Amino acid sequence: MKDIGFVGLGVMGAPMAAHLLQAGFAVRVWNRTAEKAEALLAQGARRATTPAEAAAGAEAIITMVADDEALRHVVHGSDGILYSLSAGGVHLTMGTVSPQLLRQLTHEHRECGTHLLAAPVFGSKESAVGKKLWAVVGGQAAAFERCRPVIEAMCAGGTYLGEDPGAAAQMKLIINMLISTAVAALVQAFTLGRAGGLAADKLTEVVRRVFASPLYERYGTRLEKRDFDVYFPLKLMLKDLRLVLEMAAAAGVPLPHAAATREMVVAAIGRGFADADAAASLLRTWEATG
Amino acid sequence: MKDIGFVGLGVMGAPMAAHLLQAGFAVRVWNRTAEKAEALLAQGARRATTPAEAAAGAEAIITMVADDEALRHVVHGSDGILYSLSAGGVHLTMGTVSPQLLRQLTHEHRECGTHLLAAPVFGSKESAVGKKLWAVVGGQAAAFERCRPVIEAMCAGGTYLGEDPGAAAQMKLIINMLISTAVAALVQAFTLGRAGGLAADKLTEVVRRVFASPLYERYGTRLEKRDFDVYFPLKLMLKDLRLVLEMAAAAGVPLPHAAATREMVVAAIGRGFADADAAASLLRTWEATG
Amino acid sequence: MKDIGFVGLGVMGAPMAAHLLQAGFAVRVWNRTAEKAEALLAQGARRATTPAEAAAGAEAIITMVADDEALRHVVHGSDGILYSLSAGGVHLTMGTVSPQLLRQLTHEHRECGTHLLAAPVFGSKESAVGKKLWAVVGGQAAAFERCRPVIEAMCAGGTYLGEDPGAAAQMKLIINMLISTAVAALVQAFTLGRAGGLAADKLTEVVRRVFASPLYERYGTRLEKRDFDVYFPLKLMLKDLRLVLEMAAAAGVPLPHAAATREMVVAAIGRGFADADAAASLLRTWEATG
Amino acid sequence: MKDIGFVGLGVMGAPMAAHLLQAGFAVRVWNRTAEKAEALLAQGARRATTPAEAAAGAEAIITMVADDEALRHVVHGSDGILYSLSAGGVHLTMGTVSPQLLRQLTHEHRECGTHLLAAPVFGSKESAVGKKLWAVVGGQAAAFERCRPVIEAMCAGGTYLGEDPGAAAQMKLIINMLISTAVAALVQAFTLGRAGGLAADKLTEVVRRVFASPLYERYGTRLEKRDFDVYFPLKLMLKDLRLVLEMAAAAGVPLPHAAATREMVVAAIGRGFADADAAASLLRTWEATG
Repeated sequence: MKDIGFVGLGVMGAPMAAHLLQAGFAVRVWNRTAEKAEALLAQGARRATTPAEAAAGAEAIITMVADDEALRHVVHGSDGILYSLSAGGVHLTMGTVSPQLLRQLTHEHRECGTHLLAAPVFGSKESAVGKKLWAVVGGQAAAFERCRPVIEAMCAGGTYLGEDPGAAAQMKLIINMLISTAVAALVQAFTLGRAGGLAADKLTEVVRRVFASPLYERYGTRLEKRDFDVYFPLKLMLKDLRLVLEMAAAAGVPLPHAAATREMVVAAIGRGFADADAAASLLRTWEATG
Repeated sequence: MKDIGFVGLGVMGAPMAAHLLQAGFAVRVWNRTAEKAEALLAQGARRATTPAEAAAGAEAIITMVADDEALRHVVHGSDGILYSLSAGGVHLTMGTVSPQLLRQLTHEHRECGTHLLAAPVFGSKESAVGKKLWAVVGGQAAAFERCRPVIEAMCAGGTYLGEDPGAAAQMKLIINMLISTAVAALVQAFTLGRAGGLAADKLTEVVRRVFASPLYERYGTRLEKRDFDVYFPLKLMLKDLRLVLEMAAAAGVPLPHAAATREMVVAAIGRGFADADAAASLLRTWEATG
Repeated sequence: MKDIGFVGLGVMGAPMAAHLLQAGFAVRVWNRTAEKAEALLAQGARRATTPAEAAAGAEAIITMVADDEALRHVVHGSDGILYSLSAGGVHLTMGTVSPQLLRQLTHEHRECGTHLLAAPVFGSKESAVGKKLWAVVGGQAAAFERCRPVIEAMCAGGTYLGEDPGAAAQMKLIINMLISTAVAALVQAFTLGRAGGLAADKLTEVVRRVFASPLYERYGTRLEKRDFDVYFPLKLMLKDLRLVLEMAAAAGVPLPHAAATREMVVAAIGRGFADADAAASLLRTWEATG
Repeated sequence: MKDIGFVGLGVMGAPMAAHLLQAGFAVRVWNRTAEKAEALLAQGARRATTPAEAAAGAEAIITMVADDEALRHVVHGSDGILYSLSAGGVHLTMGTVSPQLLRQLTHEHRECGTHLLAAPVFGSKESAVGKKLWAVVGGQAAAFERCRPVIEAMCAGGTYLGEDPGAAAQMKLIINMLISTAVAALVQAFTLGRAGGLAADKLTEVVRRVFASPLYERYGTRLEKRDFDVYFPLKLMLKDLRLVLEMAAAAGVPLPHAAATREMVVAAIGRGFADADAAASLLRTWEATG
């Protein structure tokens, strides 16, 4: 596999596409706001003027877009990738979208003689830059084998979940639920610790000792240091929570913690933090709540 | 420091006392149900017939009991340790109790010329056996220095939080809240994964990759394997949640996730699981809920 | 106003259309499953074979359908009412749908020279039969004046909220949130009372004395008597909760009680109660939860 | 029955005692802060210098105090009513306390040859003044018959629940849970309505039409008018929620809505509203939350 299309050059997509270039793939890129492609063009990417053009002739077209609506937009329509991808080509979708959409697209791709492979990734901007993302993969096994070098050029590795792309979306949403729950609980821990006079660095230290988790340490340190950079925008956390709650509602499984996190996020949205960092916004909201 | 009293030989206390014997301390033990002391007597411990007798002549008396009521019981009264501990002696309390009780006991010990040092520990039975507990310590610095060899004989280490024993209780309750939240979310994740057809071992694998936390791995594996051994009884989780919610109410900090966990625990209590393992009970309750 | 079209002859729509016939209106009816129209035809209604046909020539076309998707279906498309309603005609929508959809339809109707008047109603089957519904009305004041006799033929009355049809949807969703919260709390009250040995009829009596509300009395009596008839299907409660939670998320207002009700509903959905009565299903689910 | 003792002359107790005087009872009053008795003395009450003195020689001693601790305080100890009440006398407790405390006091009174009759009341200051309180009564039937004229002098009526005084506490706590849930939901409704541009008076009007409940109307009007008088202090709502949640935990019945209300109350406590009106404080907190 050599020729790759890449659609979606946001905070995650841009460093992922850069890894592909560094690994020697020929990459044609498209982004809704074209300026975001400049840095990649300087690194050897070619520009496509539509998603369809990015997909035309590619062995695999990667989409790294924010939500169901954005994915539908780049797949369907006259400029979409669905009809321009060559027979046998693979659409490798790496953003976090709903299982239902993936199941619908699986069907549509099959009718076009192309394949959908879902490989949503865990990790934030830093992990994308450091090639530390972890993918969960669902789709045809042969398509996965062909795309494995592409995935490995961008990620530390991946877990293959079987033939159903929807399973990858389910897994992604479930794990994201665990992460957002942990973040929400950490925010409450730091707020309560502060109210009670506990030193924030001591709290981080004990979290490090008890959880021994890089993820908890990363969030703990940010909350301790009051680091307000945007690692993951709040509105995407809201989207993920909506998707997992809908998935759980359809399955008849109550998720009271995700529901509680969602209401915290809504309060932070009400404070104008939709585009701010999720963890930082929840902290500022919670400190102001009581 | 050589002579130690030890009160409370439950699943945690028994292996902790055994470590003290192995480290060469002379240990006098007392437990509400006397038979639990047998194994330790065989390892060289001496038996005390009351908490007061365990404390009499000891440089430090350790209490490892389940809750405020139990701690009050072994401290106060004619058989309690408060008046039998020699001047300058240290009461090292290692169970999870309320900050208020510790602040009250600090005062009472001071009036008796003795010291209260709080060092509640993180970890379950396995960690106690494997000397992998982590302590959070509050109390007089000099008392901590004198007790450090005792603590290090039982734990992998500890974080010193300053002169207020109540701070150690606060920290313990806050971290326990993080843990019970994580467990509750994992239970929901496994229930939802199962409802959606995800293989439980794949879920554990992705949890391992994303959190890279021995604690998440331990709980994930137990939930995956449906391991119903009693590591931590549900009723103690309820007690900890009650304490942290009361502490947070006094501080004016809402804890919606702890509140949600508490209601899950209550549902499991309603199913008769008070003495069963917390994680396992929550899983069985949640699978039956929908 | 004389000629009315009526689309949607469910548990609510059928008795509402019957009231129009009794009041002397000429009514042309359409329903997805045609048999449901039989009783009304016998009372003098005429049958339309499509929504468009029901609207053609009518001064007002009433839609009483379950959700956004159903409303879109009868409005848009070749068989939809949008292009068949005569210029100046009023589309009176009385089901519970999203404010966004109403705002979109307002615009589309305006372009067609027709009017959208939203008048969602409070009350269940019994209230519809007994003409005890209460409407909340949004839309052009002149259209409201013209439709007032129609609304008054079906309802005890209505509250006019101004020119924006979306405001009627907002009001409907907010009040439905109050009702579902009250029902969820009553379910918990009866479950807890039963667990504690309180006689259910005493609980109903005290609820009657304290709230003095026909609505509380109705639900209280049903829960006391374990009346499992279908007054309002659970899946519609889930839909309403989803809509109000989305509306609140967009406004940045947390709704923890609606979120909690939603998770109760999800648990009941998981037990297979989607089409069963909301209050009864929640009761059976809650009694089995603990 | 003629001679009554009355302990606890707060916002509720004072007008209740006044009704007894107006009905011709001889009333001896005691209050922790003695000045609050002045107005009643002017109306013919006699002053007692201790709870014991209020009870001595009385056929019934009424206690109207805020919580378990206050009730224990006036019952036990050398100045308490327990040993001064004459054999056959009735202790009529009308505040909201825990079922456990009432069951303990029942036992203690029985040993003294006296009776405990629990008759907690529904209604706020206004209802107490207007003699519109409603009592729920538990205790010996004969004691209830003897006290009936006393209760009817202060209340619109009461519901007798049987021999167990604890049942009255259970009923009171369950109904208070319904009320606080309704208030919390109304607060969210007004906040959401305001965010969406709905006129507050229209919301009150629709609430009046749909619920037709004086209780909803009272709260709705206060929230609409932003009436910040203290009708029921927030800290008492927190106490009631704590009691009902503990009762439900013991029974194994989850109360997610009470838990959610509790966290709202905690946020309002954090804003310094402990002594402010519950409904008003929740409104101000919620409006500031998002």
